[in-house]
Amino acid sequence: MIEVGLIGLGNVGQGILNIIQENQALLTQRVGQPIHIKTIMVRDPKKYNHIDFGDSKITTQFSDLINDNEIKIIVEVIGGETPAYDYICQALEHGKYVVTANKEVVSKHQKTFFELAKKHQVDIYYEAAVGGGIPIIRSLKVGFSANKIESLLGILNGTTNYILTKIEQDSQEFDVTLKEAQELGLAEADPSMDISGLDAAHKLVILAAVAFKSNIQVKDVFYEGIENITLKDMKYAKELGFAIKLLALAKHVNGKQLSFKVHPTMIPLSHPLANIHNEMNAAYLKGNAVGEALLSGKGAGGSPTGSAIVSDIVDIAFDHTQDVNRRNLEPNLKTADLCPFEDTDSAFYIRLKVNDHHSVLEQLLGVLAKAEISVSKILQKEIQNNIAEIVIITHPTKEHQMAQSISELTDIDTVKKCCSVIRVEEQV
Amino acid sequence: MIEVGLIGLGNVGQGILNIIQENQALLTQRVGQPIHIKTIMVRDPKKYNHIDFGDSKITTQFSDLINDNEIKIIVEVIGGETPAYDYICQALEHGKYVVTANKEVVSKHQKTFFELAKKHQVDIYYEAAVGGGIPIIRSLKVGFSANKIESLLGILNGTTNYILTKIEQDSQEFDVTLKEAQELGLAEADPSMDISGLDAAHKLVILAAVAFKSNIQVKDVFYEGIENITLKDMKYAKELGFAIKLLALAKHVNGKQLSFKVHPTMIPLSHPLANIHNEMNAAYLKGNAVGEALLSGKGAGGSPTGSAIVSDIVDIAFDHTQDVNRRNLEPNLKTADLCPFEDTDSAFYIRLKVNDHHSVLEQLLGVLAKAEISVSKILQKEIQNNIAEIVIITHPTKEHQMAQSISELTDIDTVKKCCSVIRVEEQV
Repeated sequence: MIEVGLIGLGNVGQGILNIIQENQALLTQRVGQPIHIKTIMVRDPKKYNHIDFGDSKITTQFSDLINDNEIKIIVEVIGGETPAYDYICQALEHGKYVVTANKEVVSKHQKTFFELAKKHQVDIYYEAAVGGGIPIIRSLKVGFSANKIESLLGILNGTTNYILTKIEQDSQEFDVTLKEAQELGLAEADPSMDISGLDAAHKLVILAAVAFKSNIQVKDVFYEGIENITLKDMKYAKELGFAIKLLALAKHVNGKQLSFKVHPTMIPLSHPLANIHNEMNAAYLKGNAVGEALLSGKGAGGSPTGSAIVSDIVDIAFDHTQDVNRRNLEPNLKTADLCPFEDTDSAFYIRLKVNDHHSVLEQLLGVLAKAEISVSKILQKEIQNNIAEIVIITHPTKEHQMAQSISELTDIDTVKKCCSVIRVEEQV
Repeated sequence: MIEVGLIGLGNVGQGILNIIQENQALLTQRVGQPIHIKTIMVRDPKKYNHIDFGDSKITTQFSDLINDNEIKIIVEVIGGETPAYDYICQALEHGKYVVTANKEVVSKHQKTFFELAKKHQVDIYYEAAVGGGIPIIRSLKVGFSANKIESLLGILNGTTNYILTKIEQDSQEFDVTLKEAQELGLAEADPSMDISGLDAAHKLVILAAVAFKSNIQVKDVFYEGIENITLKDMKYAKELGFAIKLLALAKHVNGKQLSFKVHPTMIPLSHPLANIHNEMNAAYLKGNAVGEALLSGKGAGGSPTGSAIVSDIVDIAFDHTQDVNRRNLEPNLKTADLCPFEDTDSAFYIRLKVNDHHSVLEQLLGVLAKAEISVSKILQKEIQNNIAEIVIITHPTKEHQMAQSISELTDIDTVKKCCSVIRVEEQV
């Protein structure tokens, strides 16, 4: 049993509880033993009466976590510098592993934490502090470890990316959009940390350590917010072939210097980051071996952030198993219960050449209706004397039904040829 | 010293040598000791006379690798089922770690390899076998380990993605595009394994084990190639709001069954995979905790594939260091040599309101020219009586030069207001 102490039971804390509950069987198989939240520390236990803690114990005392020798891992999800800083230091000093989602405290004190962890032969994991559920930090530390990272561009703040997306999509100004985002819970009551770029700057400080082994502070990062971005600039940008994104930029300059900046940035519409919309986050890097790579996903929220936290716990557990290869090997492969191909679903695009007869479309739709295949879109084009092309996109149906229908469609007298059948995924 | 034996010296083998040579200092710092290719096995040493091996020894005998007790890791980059299968089995049986880029042999024999590795307390790494330099496999094993993976869609073959991109971009048919890709070295002389979807099917078999813990074979994957995709279908797809991509699809069906397919697929133009162009690969997954996530990058080539191989070697080395936290901690942070913000470069978008006087543009350009700032794009719009709006996008210049120029621009009599200054990254 991996016994965990949890500090904080907001969105992220509850997300962690849900994930461990819902995926317990799968996690136990991966780790080789169950992950168990033994004790949860909160300020006011009454606030959480409605939550099902299973057999986790609730406490208001940090000492109940730190002095419990069974607890090997402390998860901190209260955010902010104080008292998180003290909790993390004490946990490391007591020989406990720490997992945190707290970008502010990591950004300000990472060097101290790393030194404490080294001294006490433990570790601190903080994947959730940057990019929510996206494994950015882990990929930089291991997956791209062969590379010198030449540059790193990130969309690291979901609130501002949501607002910029909406300014453009809904053609409305910043102030109105911010207000809407606040009403939807996608921007905080005091949004200044997000809007000003400071939140992204904290995250960039963390990435500076991981990607460039550089110890910087927020004061070393130039940051500028999105509060002055107007709808007009957004429109001109598009006209000129650009999107406007709040980017965090880390780069090598002149061979040996580094530059770290956060500011609204116009990037070509064809750039992968231009297609990161709404509250999604992303990191786009250039490595001297791998070239360009992009990682993207949800940058905030209880469940995506919880995903990173629980994956960090799993990773720590991997280091403490007897099997040297628990992290990587797949020794428990099962025979899959496969759905026969004929019974799988797909939507379809069908292109037919037909005699341009008034009843042909009705006949085609009749064949599909008989097989209970409903139609989502139709295009009809006259291509030459009396020959038309008809394109149909269906709703999802079984492969065997479509195979049968295609055969019946081609049997219709007025159908000259079934030119193409291509599968369609609308809901992906 | 981590001593490595390398089998194969094609593109990927040479990529590995280059990366280890070029990034040696950085790798040594990460791992705590140097990575050294001790012995390279090739069929015909004469073919490689032009290559600088450093102090690596060349051999034609597998026994020189397998019987060398200093060699802890065998890297196999010859591809194909035979003789790679024998080499990998023997290496594992001799207690050596294996790193391979060989999707075919892993797809066919992964269960055997995993069992052998477990039995002999070693491991087999194969990040390079799927998605080249993208850490897909590692992210599924660790970064997303808290998740039940609900579905996985991949663009796993660079050749076919390149061809589909070019059919659309260059408005030419499949046959012509394939021929061009072959001339550019982006498709093989016999392209059938790529074109038919079989290559992607092999990769999907590997991902089925990692993401769904399922032991399947290529025969369990329905696959269909891109040879019948026409320019016309590509155009109609776009008209209807879709892109056509060769996707590998893995999904849960009806609660407990799984389905694995590879086929050309129309996906909405707004889908992240619709924006993966040319030879780029990508994996798009849905996890029950993290939601949607996308990883993309170069799926083939000596350097990206070498990046994955060398990162695998680093990961194995992490497991063999004395420091429990070598993989994750950053104990050697340096003070960064920061480029002062004023000296960093950026291109700029400037929007000005001006009196619509014939000489105003000349005056503006004069100010910029004086600061040696060259202009990339200009938009001029009359907005009301005698007032125009001018938008200028510059080429990169220093921040201090731009700050000075903005101040001079606003001093011009005919300039009413500098409305916006936004940084631009054209080359990102």
